[in-house]
Amino acid sequence: MSMTITEKILADHAGLPEVVPGQLITAKLDLVLANDVTGPIAIREFTKFGVDKVFDAGKVALVPDHFTPNKDIASAEQAKLMREFAREQQIEHYWEIGRVGIEHCLLPEQGVTLPGDMIIGADSHTCTYGALGAFATGVGSTDCAAGLATGEGWFKVPESMKFVFHGTKFQPWVSGKDLILYIIGKIGVDGARYRAMEFAGEGISALSQDGRFTMCNMAIEAGGKNGIIAADEKTEAYLKGRAHRPYKVFASDPDARYAEIMEFEVSEIPLQVALPHLPENTESVEEAAGIKLDQVVIGSCTNGRIEDLRVAAGILRGRKIHPEVRLLIFPGTQEIYRQAMHEGLLDIFLEAGAAVSTPTCGPCLGGHMGILAKGERALATTNRNFVGRMGHPESEVYLSGPAVAAASAVRGEISHPREVVGNG
Amino acid sequence: MSMTITEKILADHAGLPEVVPGQLITAKLDLVLANDVTGPIAIREFTKFGVDKVFDAGKVALVPDHFTPNKDIASAEQAKLMREFAREQQIEHYWEIGRVGIEHCLLPEQGVTLPGDMIIGADSHTCTYGALGAFATGVGSTDCAAGLATGEGWFKVPESMKFVFHGTKFQPWVSGKDLILYIIGKIGVDGARYRAMEFAGEGISALSQDGRFTMCNMAIEAGGKNGIIAADEKTEAYLKGRAHRPYKVFASDPDARYAEIMEFEVSEIPLQVALPHLPENTESVEEAAGIKLDQVVIGSCTNGRIEDLRVAAGILRGRKIHPEVRLLIFPGTQEIYRQAMHEGLLDIFLEAGAAVSTPTCGPCLGGHMGILAKGERALATTNRNFVGRMGHPESEVYLSGPAVAAASAVRGEISHPREVVGNG
Repeated sequence: MSMTITEKILADHAGLPEVVPGQLITAKLDLVLANDVTGPIAIREFTKFGVDKVFDAGKVALVPDHFTPNKDIASAEQAKLMREFAREQQIEHYWEIGRVGIEHCLLPEQGVTLPGDMIIGADSHTCTYGALGAFATGVGSTDCAAGLATGEGWFKVPESMKFVFHGTKFQPWVSGKDLILYIIGKIGVDGARYRAMEFAGEGISALSQDGRFTMCNMAIEAGGKNGIIAADEKTEAYLKGRAHRPYKVFASDPDARYAEIMEFEVSEIPLQVALPHLPENTESVEEAAGIKLDQVVIGSCTNGRIEDLRVAAGILRGRKIHPEVRLLIFPGTQEIYRQAMHEGLLDIFLEAGAAVSTPTCGPCLGGHMGILAKGERALATTNRNFVGRMGHPESEVYLSGPAVAAASAVRGEISHPREVVGNG
Repeated sequence: MSMTITEKILADHAGLPEVVPGQLITAKLDLVLANDVTGPIAIREFTKFGVDKVFDAGKVALVPDHFTPNKDIASAEQAKLMREFAREQQIEHYWEIGRVGIEHCLLPEQGVTLPGDMIIGADSHTCTYGALGAFATGVGSTDCAAGLATGEGWFKVPESMKFVFHGTKFQPWVSGKDLILYIIGKIGVDGARYRAMEFAGEGISALSQDGRFTMCNMAIEAGGKNGIIAADEKTEAYLKGRAHRPYKVFASDPDARYAEIMEFEVSEIPLQVALPHLPENTESVEEAAGIKLDQVVIGSCTNGRIEDLRVAAGILRGRKIHPEVRLLIFPGTQEIYRQAMHEGLLDIFLEAGAAVSTPTCGPCLGGHMGILAKGERALATTNRNFVGRMGHPESEVYLSGPAVAAASAVRGEISHPREVVGNG
């Protein structure tokens, strides 16, 4: 029977020849992930199961990235609990501050997530790994605890929804972030509820691996169960030197069944901005232009990869940010941070007047390192602009890709990059 | 009449030919400083005075360095209040995140504090600027508010206490931090209460300007009203390109009167460690060796200058920090951060497995970016190891200079640098 890539991965891990949407299955897990916010809750639940050991210490990732370096005593206690569990259980994929990065940037970089994998994570943006052709989805801390104990999870096979991008002539500076914001703007924040969001077409093939991570990262912002892109030669190139175990590459059958197929012409998609307080409130940057900003954030699991930093640096090179704007740069991992340093990008950021942080989730979720006061407005390359997401309930968050963010930091208001660098 | 350098600066700013210890004077201020913790309190007090404008917008420094990038909504509101005041009052010495640094590193670097100046700051480590031959002392936020309004402050002329360091043959890796910890160990945390601590002798002449800042920074840890070192050719070299206004160089008269004179031979001073929970609990590093650590912090207004980072990098070069230790590096300013990057020091830190922060006071005062959990132990190049200073009341802080801190990060326990690099 014909299946989608998502169905094939689920069938493979359920030990079944085929699965159909709506079917309840139990599937073996290749990775169970938690962070310093969700991990302690999962660990406390795990200890109630009366099991001594996690199912496989090599298939668990515990990533202290949210409130670290420890924001306060409470977060220090959370990190400590997770650290002690990691040591006691000899968890293979655990990193201390200074070696850790933002989970959804770090795990692919370290070769922990691979094509064909079945991954659950106690973090909603676990869907990021779909960009490698894996099935990856966010779960609650209790499901995570069950996964830690059993190495299995139960799933209802999702319907698949296909998003086909025709053409490769992107408008200048348009990136994966703009494609996914455009989709969310069209279908809304529940437009793909409990569906697999499969991204395909020439436009996706033309996207870099970094751009694909950005797209899959935000599948959850349309309610998707997962986001997924079949691995191709770009994926293989990305994995070279990172993958240290065998993996299976799956692809949808040509006649696979979809609940819905949407088609787009990439040349028609302009740079996007999502206005408060939902990612679906999208406008073109021209429509949003002129909105004054207090803070700009470039980084996060959505857009903290080297390509994002290169794009931002390309616009900031030789320029100063607006005197009344704070620009915060959050590289996704230490490797990205070092790469950016070696390429001279950090120097450009510092010369422009930006603060460069050690990798951490930071302000994205209102954690620390750039929280907004009442009435303040930020433009961020992050993935959520819910009420109070970055601080005070009366603050505002706008979302964009790194080019618009960098240009807006220079001008002090939401701006098209051409307002800063001309037509590129 | 013969006077000490402190008495001369006070007399000069009081418009008097001479002053004597115990005398109450009113002195004109060259600089009034506050940060994002104390500034908002001072500003609220200032607004009660019914004065429209600060006494001189060019003689006020407002530095958002403590809980920034904003740790949480409360700190964001504090930073916002200070920012709005700075804009409204057109305060000359105000910096946003990304351009700001730790106040006591930033102001000297930017040429805001100069020899002969009379400086008050709503921060206890304002005494740092004494290393330039200025009179600088910490005050409460209300006194700071009065200073903002009137440009004057009242002072009781302190007795002076002289610390003479003979010789220039420092033991390997011994720095200004060891000298000042050694003094505090001898005289105790109130051993110089309300006294001017004047550092002099060949040993001080041999110290770098950075080392002198470290010494004067900790005068308050012995209860000193101020710490002071007469400006010399090293000071002049430091100020070259930084000082943009005239300044007066003062020095103590040979027969100036001191309440007490203490003399030391620098070759006899070993590397120091201050044990919990007071800076006076000093031991030699050999005595403290072997104590296991969870965290090491290198940076702060005490030891976040380029020389400190060079010393740490010299020990960390080509080495990895202990797997169970978190090493946090906090450069004092963006200029120091960039300098460290250009010299390859940041690369050494990252390769070793350290987290490098944007300049902020961070964990030093238990603010953010490295808070300790219950039972955790840190070695820090900061200035205070009071109960709960860096987090949980049942955590512990040890103090040292950057060489001991770096070596201890590698070994996971308090260690003499020669245990890591041999005899240098």
